Amino acid sequence: MDQHIAIASITPCVDGGRYPVKRIQGERCAVEATVFRDGHETIRVVLRWRRAHDKTYREIPMTLANAGLDLWRATFPMADVGRYAFTIEAWTDLYASWLDDLRKRVEAGQSDIRSELLEGVALLKRVRRRAGAEDRARLADAATKLASADVPPQSAWETAAALSDLMLRLQPRDDAVVHKPEIEVTADRPRARAGAWYEMFVRSQGDTPGKGATLREAERRIPDIRDMGFDVLYLAPVHPIGRTHRKGRNNSLRAEPGDPGSPWAIGSEAGGFDAVEPSLGTIEDFDHFVEAARAAGLEIAFDVALQCSPDHPWVKQHPAWFYRRPDGSIKYAENPPKKYEDVYPLNFDTPDRAALWNEIRRILLFWIGHGVKIFRVDNPHTKPLRFWEWLIREIQSEHPDVLFLAEAFTRPPMMKTLAKLGFSQSYTYFTWRHTKAELTEYLTELTQPEMRDTFRPNFFTNTPDILPRFLVDGGRPAFKMRLVLAATLSPSYGMYSGYELCESDWMPHHAIPGDIEYLHSEKYEIKVRDWNAPGNIKDFIAKINAIRRENPALHRLANLRFLEIVNDQLLAYAKWSPDRTNILIIAVNLNPFQPHQGTVHVPAEVAGVAPGETFLAHDLITDAVYPWSERNFVRLDPHVEPAHVLRVERTRP
Amino acid sequence: MDQHIAIASITPCVDGGRYPVKRIQGERCAVEATVFRDGHETIRVVLRWRRAHDKTYREIPMTLANAGLDLWRATFPMADVGRYAFTIEAWTDLYASWLDDLRKRVEAGQSDIRSELLEGVALLKRVRRRAGAEDRARLADAATKLASADVPPQSAWETAAALSDLMLRLQPRDDAVVHKPEIEVTADRPRARAGAWYEMFVRSQGDTPGKGATLREAERRIPDIRDMGFDVLYLAPVHPIGRTHRKGRNNSLRAEPGDPGSPWAIGSEAGGFDAVEPSLGTIEDFDHFVEAARAAGLEIAFDVALQCSPDHPWVKQHPAWFYRRPDGSIKYAENPPKKYEDVYPLNFDTPDRAALWNEIRRILLFWIGHGVKIFRVDNPHTKPLRFWEWLIREIQSEHPDVLFLAEAFTRPPMMKTLAKLGFSQSYTYFTWRHTKAELTEYLTELTQPEMRDTFRPNFFTNTPDILPRFLVDGGRPAFKMRLVLAATLSPSYGMYSGYELCESDWMPHHAIPGDIEYLHSEKYEIKVRDWNAPGNIKDFIAKINAIRRENPALHRLANLRFLEIVNDQLLAYAKWSPDRTNILIIAVNLNPFQPHQGTVHVPAEVAGVAPGETFLAHDLITDAVYPWSERNFVRLDPHVEPAHVLRVERTRP
Repeated sequence: MDQHIAIASITPCVDGGRYPVKRIQGERCAVEATVFRDGHETIRVVLRWRRAHDKTYREIPMTLANAGLDLWRATFPMADVGRYAFTIEAWTDLYASWLDDLRKRVEAGQSDIRSELLEGVALLKRVRRRAGAEDRARLADAATKLASADVPPQSAWETAAALSDLMLRLQPRDDAVVHKPEIEVTADRPRARAGAWYEMFVRSQGDTPGKGATLREAERRIPDIRDMGFDVLYLAPVHPIGRTHRKGRNNSLRAEPGDPGSPWAIGSEAGGFDAVEPSLGTIEDFDHFVEAARAAGLEIAFDVALQCSPDHPWVKQHPAWFYRRPDGSIKYAENPPKKYEDVYPLNFDTPDRAALWNEIRRILLFWIGHGVKIFRVDNPHTKPLRFWEWLIREIQSEHPDVLFLAEAFTRPPMMKTLAKLGFSQSYTYFTWRHTKAELTEYLTELTQPEMRDTFRPNFFTNTPDILPRFLVDGGRPAFKMRLVLAATLSPSYGMYSGYELCESDWMPHHAIPGDIEYLHSEKYEIKVRDWNAPGNIKDFIAKINAIRRENPALHRLANLRFLEIVNDQLLAYAKWSPDRTNILIIAVNLNPFQPHQGTVHVPAEVAGVAPGETFLAHDLITDAVYPWSERNFVRLDPHVEPAHVLRVERTRP
Repeated sequence: MDQHIAIASITPCVDGGRYPVKRIQGERCAVEATVFRDGHETIRVVLRWRRAHDKTYREIPMTLANAGLDLWRATFPMADVGRYAFTIEAWTDLYASWLDDLRKRVEAGQSDIRSELLEGVALLKRVRRRAGAEDRARLADAATKLASADVPPQSAWETAAALSDLMLRLQPRDDAVVHKPEIEVTADRPRARAGAWYEMFVRSQGDTPGKGATLREAERRIPDIRDMGFDVLYLAPVHPIGRTHRKGRNNSLRAEPGDPGSPWAIGSEAGGFDAVEPSLGTIEDFDHFVEAARAAGLEIAFDVALQCSPDHPWVKQHPAWFYRRPDGSIKYAENPPKKYEDVYPLNFDTPDRAALWNEIRRILLFWIGHGVKIFRVDNPHTKPLRFWEWLIREIQSEHPDVLFLAEAFTRPPMMKTLAKLGFSQSYTYFTWRHTKAELTEYLTELTQPEMRDTFRPNFFTNTPDILPRFLVDGGRPAFKMRLVLAATLSPSYGMYSGYELCESDWMPHHAIPGDIEYLHSEKYEIKVRDWNAPGNIKDFIAKINAIRRENPALHRLANLRFLEIVNDQLLAYAKWSPDRTNILIIAVNLNPFQPHQGTVHVPAEVAGVAPGETFLAHDLITDAVYPWSERNFVRLDPHVEPAHVLRVERTRP
């Protein structure tokens, strides 16, 4: 038979099926498609799905959700972490079409339907051979009855209708159409979507000035971090640090004796990517640290920076893996006129690349063997796109619970493509978005269908490389408001240690004119801090992280709606859980210097109340409770509390 | 080398390249894409295009239109009518990358660039073998200079830069990526986009009551139709009409002697799809009619209704092409409880379908041989989707100037898919869209990117099957306002004869409860009209069609912007030519009974003037001229003129 059936507009689907769709394990994947055929015949549509590693598909009937738009819908379960694949099949159900035609005739009281009944008999006979003994008997009985000259139309119809399910099962799918390509879905574990990250340097967790902490000593910080309510502990690289051209304090070209060097200049005589810096301890100490963190409910995120110091073992073992100068020497990293003589970039296009790529794969598996399940990847946009697609697939096919965070601060197309290629999460522009207009526009972009199916943002308030001037100028209130924004606008967010102390000593950026960076950057020296210094916001952080845990409305990205409030310095938005049992209304003063006030408009449907009905707005930060309705006065003093995080409640807590 | 380069978000592109994009011959096809690579190397991007029947591609360099978004752009010419194909190729330009690096070093005053220069020399040597004698000499000279120990950086840079174009030509495209699939573009002749259609029954063009006109007699109508300013003359089927179960007046089941029958019940002893109804004349008469129309500047649109009367020759010659009942008789069309005994549907799935499909192809080629270049296809949605894709491709591969109009009044997905499969134009829901909200929503949908790349609407004010109640109730003013809407909202529009006389005698629809249709439907009887009866709107039609011809703003669909006017009974919108030298502002009173007034807001950029600047609004219907600015009072009395069609002008005409 010729193709009568069209299958179109399948969702979810990224770039026509070129890239997998991202979802979370434990949920059901909802699939919709436009399916129709010419003429009036009845069609059947099924969703065919499988685990990516299974050969056979399972089938779920799709239901017609909107007849006027030929829109069909079904969902399939994703019980396990890992990759799934689905497609859609549709065919003409000749028996159902005939039955529908017969029904109309009987309802219209047509007397002579003999010819139509004989057509039905022919359809029954057609499937005889495919039926078991019992079914065959049913078919034969029905055929005899329909063929008899004196069968009353109504009773003929009832006889025929009784066979619908049987016939649906037995009929061949003569004109079946199966959509190609099948669409892949990555079901990640929930941590891929939501989590609070804390970034630190192991060596800076000690208490003796000038002396770096070991992994064992750094374990003492873990309770403090746990108490602030974080989920993920991200460690700057713990590998041996090179000595040749080691950078000194504040990124100076010459290191003084005792300068520890940048953890991102990886490799020394003590080893490379699969070794631990001796001053931090041994691999056993690392294992012990991972276990201590795990016991405190903290998961380790491990830094993957694929570049070597001149002292990295590979330089001798695999010179072919680096770029060479005409004189045969190895090229260090440069971005003229800047030189990074302490770093050799890897040549991913080397003729020996099979060995290089597989060695990198081995190294990740090595750390997975030591309890690492999250990799934060440094500058992925300077390595080949195809390399990442290959590596992430290789790793996740064996360890589907492993997550990758892309640290690609670059142009939007590259960031989006890295996410599509497989990165579980991505760094974002949040750090540079401060005004109401900037935040509204950016979050609107991030929550568009294509973005939310592939790109999971992780909002960092700061990093060792990024100290926003907003924090320097705004001080403590600014640190609190940026924390609230990061922690409530994105289900994943992070901070770099020192944020809780509102650290903001700055110097002009060595690379970006007009920009600033941390003075005494921790990348080049050991820091010793008083983690309980006055003015710290640790309790505030703990409060916000507790609110995040208790409120599922904050565990998803796209369930976001900005609310009207006529004041450019105030940002207000609503968040809700899928079942709407948990609804939050958040208002933030974006100005760290002055109090601001305004009237926020909360549409009744957003609060889940009847138009005009009042509700209780329970501030989860201060525990105050306000009677609210559609229009509510808000005043936020940055020196008191810069934000409301209000939960919609019906009865006083 | 590994894949470093990504090519994404190509426009235009329909469903990932599954369907061709529709464009117009004589214009340039503008192509955009997001193209980028990892790292800092320079990439080159070219647009590769060809005529579909050519093997070889031509190449046009794409330019970086937006560096921040990696957006590249180029256009290619479509000089001929027919199908084109394009794709995009991108690769890394190693020499340009090296040159850019060198420039930075020289600008930064780096003294020791010897090693970098030797890298350049290596690049020059690499292409030696690909160069002609002269170029080879240039390369050798430059290599010698760059390799010499004492070359000053600035002069080295100049030497190297001078070879950019040569190197671009000579370098191999090592890591070239070519986007797949290539994207097809159909360049139709301009009539596919814009034209005014007039539909009529040949037999009703006479002046003797009860006597049908012949083709020769009908030629007398041609000047009248030309004077109204139409471009296309669409004829109801001219084939022999069946006698068996012929329908009588008002679709009655029994025809009286002398009843001519429905032209859509095709075939008699006098012939079938390739024959002319004897009472209309001969094939020579048809040729003569086509020529007479052509001489008057009118092109014929020919009706293709693929269904047979019981008397069609195929019934005897090809019984296998029809559906059979169990008793062996042929099935007539039914939609229980309704029966259409005067029509036998064709079985496109017949085992003998190759013969059927090719015969239909032959028939279209036959009429093309008789001067037909436009086919209006009756109910395409009741035939297989694949049949149309095959047929239209077959015909257009030989006759690219042939156009197809789909008469598919059905659900949106089928209508959109038929357009994607190849129909040049489509009937629409315009006939049922009357309110400001309905018209705004529908035109907004039609002008979305995917729609405007594939679906070309043809707005019919009425058809032999559709008499909108709005016209019955609203009378003459309603006929005028619906004409203005159809003729100015869509570049293609049509009317069925009688509209110019404001005919609206109606009867309840025999098939659709609550709906109405024409009383004494012309489908079942011969009509004789006084084409100059009092109250006709022929002059108004002629005026509107003249305005359409003279104003390119009305020759495109998507150059439409609705204007704010605070009155639900007034619709206002702007249209403009691509070069903005022709700008129209149209205001229509949607209420045929009462005058309405309001203030229309014309943003300065829409009128092409400076903010606050005034302009002249020249009413092309009444020739009145008004001084207009951003806010203008409008009052429209349906009994005077129901609409303004204003041209923005700078000086009084």
